[in-house]
Amino acid sequence: MHDFDIVEVKEDIIRRNDDTADKLRARLARKKTFFLNVMASPGSGKTTLLLALLPILAKKYRIGVLEADIDSAVDAETVSKSLGVKTLQIHTGGACHLTAQMVEDALENFDTDGLDLIVLENIGNLVCPAEFDTGANMNLVLLSVPEGDDKPLKYPLMFEVANMVAVTKLDTLEVFDFDFDAFEAGVKKRNKDAQIFKVCALTGEGVEALATSLQKRIDEYIASK
Amino acid sequence: MHDFDIVEVKEDIIRRNDDTADKLRARLARKKTFFLNVMASPGSGKTTLLLALLPILAKKYRIGVLEADIDSAVDAETVSKSLGVKTLQIHTGGACHLTAQMVEDALENFDTDGLDLIVLENIGNLVCPAEFDTGANMNLVLLSVPEGDDKPLKYPLMFEVANMVAVTKLDTLEVFDFDFDAFEAGVKKRNKDAQIFKVCALTGEGVEALATSLQKRIDEYIASK
Repeated sequence: MHDFDIVEVKEDIIRRNDDTADKLRARLARKKTFFLNVMASPGSGKTTLLLALLPILAKKYRIGVLEADIDSAVDAETVSKSLGVKTLQIHTGGACHLTAQMVEDALENFDTDGLDLIVLENIGNLVCPAEFDTGANMNLVLLSVPEGDDKPLKYPLMFEVANMVAVTKLDTLEVFDFDFDAFEAGVKKRNKDAQIFKVCALTGEGVEALATSLQKRIDEYIASK
Repeated sequence: MHDFDIVEVKEDIIRRNDDTADKLRARLARKKTFFLNVMASPGSGKTTLLLALLPILAKKYRIGVLEADIDSAVDAETVSKSLGVKTLQIHTGGACHLTAQMVEDALENFDTDGLDLIVLENIGNLVCPAEFDTGANMNLVLLSVPEGDDKPLKYPLMFEVANMVAVTKLDTLEVFDFDFDAFEAGVKKRNKDAQIFKVCALTGEGVEALATSLQKRIDEYIASK
């Protein structure tokens, strides 16, 4: 009912974005490079989980990390220093999401030859990043215990586009009420195929299980190309 | 560098939005109604803080609450049941923010006559809601301890437009590292005038102090109109 113009322009942009995403996916498929898009709210533990998860995956795959932020290079510095993997900081210039074209442009500055896995840490936001296909093969959505179990009801699209959902900061369950049954029911309502994991990056709980499931998907992808 | 079209359309929309916001503010000023916009990430404790804060403000003011969400009416039900104040749920139809026009349209269904204070709980998002003037007299931005002290660096505009910033979930400081000095330095870098508060809605810590500061601003506003 409002801003009819926005909607039209946006649909056109999303259509163009889908084309760019498909082309990017096809290009990465030719190189057998798997592209994982990680999305979540600000402060839900994306970087901390990657610091626990990527060393496991790095035993098997050559990894590159794209860190998207509106400003600052806090996460890129942490990832690059802690893991020693190839890392690129992307600044969106105020935008609340990454488009496939932004990823494409970023990859021009990032030699992907020989990489098995590209991991994108998207902008901290449960709304906009879900609207734009980044060209990824898989969306991993994190939701931290402190955020609460009702988020799939409030941010439906994010849980609709998730292939895997990981509940993070499991060590804070003593401090926060979090009803896993309600959460899972909320996720399944939006997306019956999403796999749900429980992890704690600090204690390591559940991280191996998540890594194993990711490896399975990556190996299937590589074998199919 | 990307999507030149988006930027032009967006600037036009933002200009139109600013006009609508100014008109809304002028209309509410004639009625001596103060409009408070509350913004934060998903799960940062907006609703829980309002449940602790509004009973204090309700001793002095007649209050109406607007609950904005993409979907669900979880928060509106909680606020309406717990506080018994006049509450309206706004659904944005997928949009990541409220425009002034959306607020204006919502207020057509919400008799504001006799209200001293309208409180808007905006969409959970640290990016987009900061870009659109809602017509509010004041922006209160919440940041929860679990989200981390680095958020002003990553989400600069949100802290630039904040008049007051409240750090919530103070009771979780034992579980999470949170460097208040770093946080305050980050906020002040974006906005030297922002007042910073520390609150815990569950224990009540700091809530009276925040209420007192808000009352001061509301009383000054009402006296000046």
